[in-house]
Amino acid sequence: MKIVIIGGVAAGTSAAAKARRNSEDAQIIIFDADKDISYSGCGLPYYIGPEIEGREQLVPRDAKYFKQKYNVDVYTSHKVLEIKSQPKTLVVQNLISGEVFTESYDRLVIATGAQAVIPAIEGSDKPNVFYLRNVVSADKIRKYVLEGKPKTAVIVGSGFIGLEMAENLTVRGIHVTVVELAQHVMPALDQDVAIYLEEYLKEKGITVIVNDSVVRMEGSFEDSKVVLKSGRELTADLVVMAVGVRPNIELARAAGIELGETGAISVNTKMQTSIDGIYACGDCTESYSLITGKPFYRPLGSTANKMGRIVGDQITGNDLEFRGGLGTGIFKVFDMAVAQTGLTEKEAKREGYEVIVCYNIKPDKPEYFGGQEMVIKAVADKRSGKILGAQIVGKAGVDKRIDVFVTAITFGAKAEDLFHLDLAYAPPFSTTKDPVMYTGMILDNVLRRGRKLISPEELQEKVASGEEIQIIDARVAKQYQAEHMEGARNIPQEHIRTELNSMDKEKVTVTYCNKGVTGNAAQNILLNHGFKQVFNLSGGYKNYGKQRKR
Amino acid sequence: MKIVIIGGVAAGTSAAAKARRNSEDAQIIIFDADKDISYSGCGLPYYIGPEIEGREQLVPRDAKYFKQKYNVDVYTSHKVLEIKSQPKTLVVQNLISGEVFTESYDRLVIATGAQAVIPAIEGSDKPNVFYLRNVVSADKIRKYVLEGKPKTAVIVGSGFIGLEMAENLTVRGIHVTVVELAQHVMPALDQDVAIYLEEYLKEKGITVIVNDSVVRMEGSFEDSKVVLKSGRELTADLVVMAVGVRPNIELARAAGIELGETGAISVNTKMQTSIDGIYACGDCTESYSLITGKPFYRPLGSTANKMGRIVGDQITGNDLEFRGGLGTGIFKVFDMAVAQTGLTEKEAKREGYEVIVCYNIKPDKPEYFGGQEMVIKAVADKRSGKILGAQIVGKAGVDKRIDVFVTAITFGAKAEDLFHLDLAYAPPFSTTKDPVMYTGMILDNVLRRGRKLISPEELQEKVASGEEIQIIDARVAKQYQAEHMEGARNIPQEHIRTELNSMDKEKVTVTYCNKGVTGNAAQNILLNHGFKQVFNLSGGYKNYGKQRKR
Repeated sequence: MKIVIIGGVAAGTSAAAKARRNSEDAQIIIFDADKDISYSGCGLPYYIGPEIEGREQLVPRDAKYFKQKYNVDVYTSHKVLEIKSQPKTLVVQNLISGEVFTESYDRLVIATGAQAVIPAIEGSDKPNVFYLRNVVSADKIRKYVLEGKPKTAVIVGSGFIGLEMAENLTVRGIHVTVVELAQHVMPALDQDVAIYLEEYLKEKGITVIVNDSVVRMEGSFEDSKVVLKSGRELTADLVVMAVGVRPNIELARAAGIELGETGAISVNTKMQTSIDGIYACGDCTESYSLITGKPFYRPLGSTANKMGRIVGDQITGNDLEFRGGLGTGIFKVFDMAVAQTGLTEKEAKREGYEVIVCYNIKPDKPEYFGGQEMVIKAVADKRSGKILGAQIVGKAGVDKRIDVFVTAITFGAKAEDLFHLDLAYAPPFSTTKDPVMYTGMILDNVLRRGRKLISPEELQEKVASGEEIQIIDARVAKQYQAEHMEGARNIPQEHIRTELNSMDKEKVTVTYCNKGVTGNAAQNILLNHGFKQVFNLSGGYKNYGKQRKR
Repeated sequence: MKIVIIGGVAAGTSAAAKARRNSEDAQIIIFDADKDISYSGCGLPYYIGPEIEGREQLVPRDAKYFKQKYNVDVYTSHKVLEIKSQPKTLVVQNLISGEVFTESYDRLVIATGAQAVIPAIEGSDKPNVFYLRNVVSADKIRKYVLEGKPKTAVIVGSGFIGLEMAENLTVRGIHVTVVELAQHVMPALDQDVAIYLEEYLKEKGITVIVNDSVVRMEGSFEDSKVVLKSGRELTADLVVMAVGVRPNIELARAAGIELGETGAISVNTKMQTSIDGIYACGDCTESYSLITGKPFYRPLGSTANKMGRIVGDQITGNDLEFRGGLGTGIFKVFDMAVAQTGLTEKEAKREGYEVIVCYNIKPDKPEYFGGQEMVIKAVADKRSGKILGAQIVGKAGVDKRIDVFVTAITFGAKAEDLFHLDLAYAPPFSTTKDPVMYTGMILDNVLRRGRKLISPEELQEKVASGEEIQIIDARVAKQYQAEHMEGARNIPQEHIRTELNSMDKEKVTVTYCNKGVTGNAAQNILLNHGFKQVFNLSGGYKNYGKQRKR
């Protein structure tokens, strides 16, 4: 049995290693057009910044390692030109010698990855315009940064890579401007979550431009500039294009392998393509959502690794299958972590769910232990009560909470289940009730206890529509006096019980405080006293203020 | 409706707050014999150390707060002397005035907590012998530490509180000796996990004495000592007794309320005691294991809080029920975190499970990003494949992994499920496959793929029994030469394929490396070449070495 794998980064090498662990009989060959294999693609931005000092930290393994450890033959600088299925052969070119040869296979694994999208923009071929995709491209940027000493950079695109680059270039002393076509940075997030990130980037000295795009890059190094659609011109000694990646599917398509609706290679749960004996995995491959069951394209190192292992198991006659993903992502920018799993509100609505949404602002541990606030936006399905997704921004403990959500969602958790989790509590690690538990409690209070929430956007719409509502600011007088919502009346929560008669039980009422807890307490009192319709402002004035500033 | 709650710390105040959130009609009264309420019991050791500077950080809320916010009447320094169920009344004493009066109730909540166990030891009434249970007792220790300037301390007991005290006193410049009756520190852990903690405590300058106990405390302040059963004598300016807590059940017992087999108050999932209208919650109450369904006693702040909320919901006519716990615990000692959930190996065996156990040593994130090793010991049920429990020690990311285990176990996860979790990956937060996923993979390889593990203890037994086995050290020659297992032959993993004929396929074979990964690779090669019985040493030589040193 001869296994040939095209591509030797995350998915390809995982497939090879797993196949070898299962079988000593198979002959296993990897071809990769690149000179580096098995590197940490997700570490690349940190190699441009000072965090990763040496290339060998990023690329710890070479062909020799795979031969010794796994008896796998890795041919780097070998480009596969064509896949034939009858007979099962590949046409391969040695990029060093130029030689072209034919290689047979019994099982073929396509792990060709993805490449940076290169938009057709005038000047994108200038020597100071870069793309980050592999180690060689990172080497180039690193060299340019260290030797060219650029003072200004424009990053086009604000996904993971764009923002990680923004951090790393800023740390190198370069002034960074991020240009994003969408209405907000990190378009995979909901806008009302992205706003927290956007504000933070600005605090860190990064110029953020949204709703705009690059139309032209011009000038020489000494006087290089980027011209935007809006007409705005930016000085840019360095430009990084990070507008996304697209799957490398040319080889597969030419071989007649079916592509999915996302444009990536379509596979079943065994990672088999439409042609017998040919498998695909990693960033060239379509996966699917565990929640909706529908195909999606999520080029992530973790997913590539997982898919590769499944392929390695399958091609050696075993039974691992892909179970679907949640599209979980996380990244750090300076001291802030931003994480997301499952469906955003936007996605959930697009999928036709009737959604319940909450914003939960809580410290990761007690304030007396240095706790820092995080904002959790969670989305639940009104019909089933199930959690559909979560987005979290904060400076500490974000990765823990998103992973608890991931695990809960994977097992179909309902909002009401989260409170019951016996999560680990001690003051250095968490609050007595963890922020995840609070999130479940808030959602469950909406779902089953009539404690309705209103989002800043919904409240603004209500006010704008001219609907008559009474807005109760339940904070202490000092906070109200400092700043409050237009039209709001201040009744500190501790006085609400004595002020009941001064309010109208029949009128739609909105309560709020700083973050939502006291507003909920006020809401409880009013509902328990027979007020007909009471909404608590989710995330409180703090969240409202963020959203309003936009 | 009149609700009376006895006890105003975690459970009692949670019950009151939840009851009020649900109902404005009820009259709610809390009696507490102490002068402080609603404090963070888990924060007490850090108030003796320098982490928590002020008493007000520990006790942020007082009776006035509860009146204003929740319209709850809190009576501190009020001791309930007797519970009567017919008619429903309490006999209460005002500890300040001495007045004794009768109070009626419709619903009674017993949240009397627990108290430190005070063993009958000669000299335990000396002024330099302390117990830590409430804020007043912490005040005393704090005062003694700051004013008496003790130089040496003996801590009796090595549970959460004992070890947290050990850290905080050490940070205050005091030399600490911990004396533990059991064979190892932190008796709730398995011995082979506790050994990592024990070594670390010693590294931090703490003297650890196990298998011994205090028989006598003698001398005056200037020349105070602690005499152990072994005859050993320890100088001790300060002694902290931390040998555990016991539930305060005297009131309940006198009222004829049923106690459970653990000695704590028995309740159903609605937190009802055996007497109609009387509920119990918190550290005075028995809970039960979500895994075994059997009663257990786990006096934890997180559980108390949860139980209190459930009681508050129930007594106002709602439907929250207790779903069982996992006995999850976590604590920090200096820079090390120690966490545990579900069943230990010891407990699982006692419960009659046929267990699969693995040790997984992995960094919390890539080494190039400063990853630090953690040791995960996980236990699975051979029959169902379900995860039964996990214990983790390490310096970073321990709390995240234990919470993922907690969530997975809660939903009945099997070992094979962990690999499929779409956990959040980026280099600052995790490795491409998270340590939790690896743990699932290792266990599943045992359960379904014939990749048997052997524990250090089992290997030592095998060797001691005289059974003829071939032990293969699969590490590079340099590592083998530095130190290796007696009788082991060095065949670096990359040479195993060419050395197959020099080994005996029929003989029981044990492979090992440093942590287990390369040993598993060697095991795979041998099994795939027809070797009959191959075990990989779980946790590798690193774990073996730790265990052997004992």
